[in-house]
Amino acid sequence: MNSDKTKPTKPIKADSIDSWDFETDVVVVGYGGAGSCAAIEAADAGAEVMILELASDKGGSTALSSAEIYMGGDGGTRVQKAAGWEDSNQSMIDYLTACAGPQADAAKIKAYVEGSRDHFNWLVEQGVPFKDTEYKERAILAMTDDCLLFTGSEKAWPFRDIAKPCPRGHNLEIEGDNGGPLFMKIMGEAVERRKIDARYDCRALTLIQDAQGAVCGMRIREDMQEKNVRARRGVVLCAGGFVMNEAMVKKYAPGLQKCSVPIGNPGDMGAGILMGMGVGGAAINMDEGFVSIPYYPPASLTFGIFVNAQGQRFINEDAYHGRIGAYALKQLGDRIFLITTVEDYGNYEQESYLGAEVAGTGETVEELEQELGFKAGQLSQTIAAYNRHADAGEDPLFHKSEEWLKALQPPLVALDCTPGRGAFLPYFTLGGLDTLPSGEVLTPEGEVIVGLYAAGRTACGVPRRGEGYSSGTSVGDATFSGRMAGKAAAART
Amino acid sequence: MNSDKTKPTKPIKADSIDSWDFETDVVVVGYGGAGSCAAIEAADAGAEVMILELASDKGGSTALSSAEIYMGGDGGTRVQKAAGWEDSNQSMIDYLTACAGPQADAAKIKAYVEGSRDHFNWLVEQGVPFKDTEYKERAILAMTDDCLLFTGSEKAWPFRDIAKPCPRGHNLEIEGDNGGPLFMKIMGEAVERRKIDARYDCRALTLIQDAQGAVCGMRIREDMQEKNVRARRGVVLCAGGFVMNEAMVKKYAPGLQKCSVPIGNPGDMGAGILMGMGVGGAAINMDEGFVSIPYYPPASLTFGIFVNAQGQRFINEDAYHGRIGAYALKQLGDRIFLITTVEDYGNYEQESYLGAEVAGTGETVEELEQELGFKAGQLSQTIAAYNRHADAGEDPLFHKSEEWLKALQPPLVALDCTPGRGAFLPYFTLGGLDTLPSGEVLTPEGEVIVGLYAAGRTACGVPRRGEGYSSGTSVGDATFSGRMAGKAAAART
Repeated sequence: MNSDKTKPTKPIKADSIDSWDFETDVVVVGYGGAGSCAAIEAADAGAEVMILELASDKGGSTALSSAEIYMGGDGGTRVQKAAGWEDSNQSMIDYLTACAGPQADAAKIKAYVEGSRDHFNWLVEQGVPFKDTEYKERAILAMTDDCLLFTGSEKAWPFRDIAKPCPRGHNLEIEGDNGGPLFMKIMGEAVERRKIDARYDCRALTLIQDAQGAVCGMRIREDMQEKNVRARRGVVLCAGGFVMNEAMVKKYAPGLQKCSVPIGNPGDMGAGILMGMGVGGAAINMDEGFVSIPYYPPASLTFGIFVNAQGQRFINEDAYHGRIGAYALKQLGDRIFLITTVEDYGNYEQESYLGAEVAGTGETVEELEQELGFKAGQLSQTIAAYNRHADAGEDPLFHKSEEWLKALQPPLVALDCTPGRGAFLPYFTLGGLDTLPSGEVLTPEGEVIVGLYAAGRTACGVPRRGEGYSSGTSVGDATFSGRMAGKAAAART
Repeated sequence: MNSDKTKPTKPIKADSIDSWDFETDVVVVGYGGAGSCAAIEAADAGAEVMILELASDKGGSTALSSAEIYMGGDGGTRVQKAAGWEDSNQSMIDYLTACAGPQADAAKIKAYVEGSRDHFNWLVEQGVPFKDTEYKERAILAMTDDCLLFTGSEKAWPFRDIAKPCPRGHNLEIEGDNGGPLFMKIMGEAVERRKIDARYDCRALTLIQDAQGAVCGMRIREDMQEKNVRARRGVVLCAGGFVMNEAMVKKYAPGLQKCSVPIGNPGDMGAGILMGMGVGGAAINMDEGFVSIPYYPPASLTFGIFVNAQGQRFINEDAYHGRIGAYALKQLGDRIFLITTVEDYGNYEQESYLGAEVAGTGETVEELEQELGFKAGQLSQTIAAYNRHADAGEDPLFHKSEEWLKALQPPLVALDCTPGRGAFLPYFTLGGLDTLPSGEVLTPEGEVIVGLYAAGRTACGVPRRGEGYSSGTSVGDATFSGRMAGKAAAART
């Protein structure tokens, strides 16, 4: 491990600086979803804003994502209402709290939910288009320009018994998986309209602190020169997570190393987190991450069953793909298979993101069982029991919804979803700087570091666990927390 | 949550201190297994030593434990050799590395293993009695005065395929569960022989730092007065873990909250960890803990099977009880049962520590299945498959050793081992200050905090995960790391 890459970044003392190369009110580090929203809100609050972006263009990981945004509550967003759904703050709070489990940050969830409808309206004001339609397929993302879809485990056990299910994923009005680029194009235009100084190819090196410890600027490198930027009101760190920093993942989230592809942009090196730690910020929840087994589309694979190395099911297969990924990592043994009928296999090869190899096929259950290397009975009794219960419309083991219960009739196919054996198992980190809902960064003592804010995956936000993740909570949390941090920084005098 | 109880403790600057009430070379905080060993080594290296103990007597959590000590390697300890075992450094390293998984600290494991035979001899020199005999029962601890026993998952899959199994738990020569008090009596005498100043009812309040940031003393409270102790060479924090600090467990290891009884002494409030954090020490691995389902003795229960809420097995039942506890926590659903024959139930009520209630009984498998609320077939097919394989001398699912395979013949009994439903599920924490093998405390930057050392559960040591824990690695690690830290502190000039 290159320990340098895990080292908190030492700040510079302001009194060692002879002259400032630039001055502004609010410095935003990172021009992705969180950074753009922080910059817009800070500017709208009357602050002069500078955005520093490492890459040659805006976008960050948000531009690489589908940009689904998790919103609802309080009767419902315009789209939820148009689609006939009535959401409530309580059920959205209950759902997100169950998702985060014992790690839940109640204050952050409350702020996120209570601000959610307003967040929707604010995004619309910026120009983000949402169509008043629902995408009713079970999908990781909508490939049409329809808006509303279920992007978590809301309808799946045990969540459906905890909170009234309601779809909250909001997809942008654009065909294909093109939400991220469109979202960042619109946010970029909103930033430009405000004449915000956005600087590209510009590396944030380290924070600058005044004699009292308040953050008052940043040293940057631009055009091969180091320069000092004074931030009169504050610095907002929106520099992404640390999934691209192998040494940090090894040190803080070693359990994720089993997965296949880190998801993010090359700048997700944890630089924001390390700068925050360098001035005493607490990094929390660092061992947690999202891991997906993206096995739908085709949705028909949800009729299949996941089995572990013991040939046993371990989850209700109608749960969100990230929940299934999280439980796959908890299994003892070295195989995870998805068993499906040839009929439901359908257009897997054309439609799927999964890239899992066929591990076996069988004209009979017994043939498949043997081909996968199970002992006689090991898989077949799992399937026989599943089929018997499915015929009765029930899943006494994992309470899979009746909608997805159907006896598995051979011929059957098994896909090898074992972490590390070829299937596409994307992952990203869910730990970051401890912040208040305002984005103010906290020390381990729970004290605010004056002048420092963090948002998006540089902070530890609303989503906290792989097993309770829902799509849209990353861009949702990034954009919402970015706005809060931008406002708070601008309001500091 | 009382956030005060999770706050790092702010140090005092030495220049604010008018006069020192005491001066010594090495201050040791905590008079348990780690602290006594640290004090002895520091004294033997020529240092003047003071031990500060919060309680009214020595002992700490070591005195409350069975004081099994995990030792071996390099041909074997005297006892291993006498019992006919030949151990090697490589197999001990391989085993401990597999136990710690991706969190393993290779340098610490190497130092522990390479110093292990010498550690045995050193303990014998201090007067610790080990009999040259082996306790051959499968047990959590030896109730006789025999010494050597298997205290981990060495003989269980998958560890038996990773490292040649060898017993390394060393039990003191005393009848009953009385190793801890005897061990601390002997260590106390060894401390007294060295005329070390041990002060009881003495609370370590906070560290004192010099102008360069080096730790140079400690503020204490004694006789209702605050006093300043100068430590010319260093302070060694041996103040235990944080399992008794509910707020810290909630913040750092929320997954452990499901278990029933925190194991430790009332002083395990994380005070040492919080003092270390207060001077910039990194606390690592804080989410990890040990949790046990102590279902043997009677060893005959190992012939039984654990099933989850789905009626499925989830582990090879011949593994160490802590590994079974860790996997029980990973199961989806809210029931964990141990199913045994009435014959193997045997003296459960007299011999067991488990305290699990009988959840059901059955003259037939089907009767038990129904009584436990399972659907027809759900448990019975698990048992039928287990029996079929057991009759063939194999466990294709979890590779339980043949020694513990026997078809489950009714009448059967099910014990309710569900976390939170009455059974005794003890737990303790495995996170702490990041240290070098020398005990020097590290910052998140990986820099040594001059003058500060930590050992035992105040540090993050060799054992790192519940699923790979072995008895004897806590007292083993505490005493070994205490010695290293005491030596290192004394050697500082």
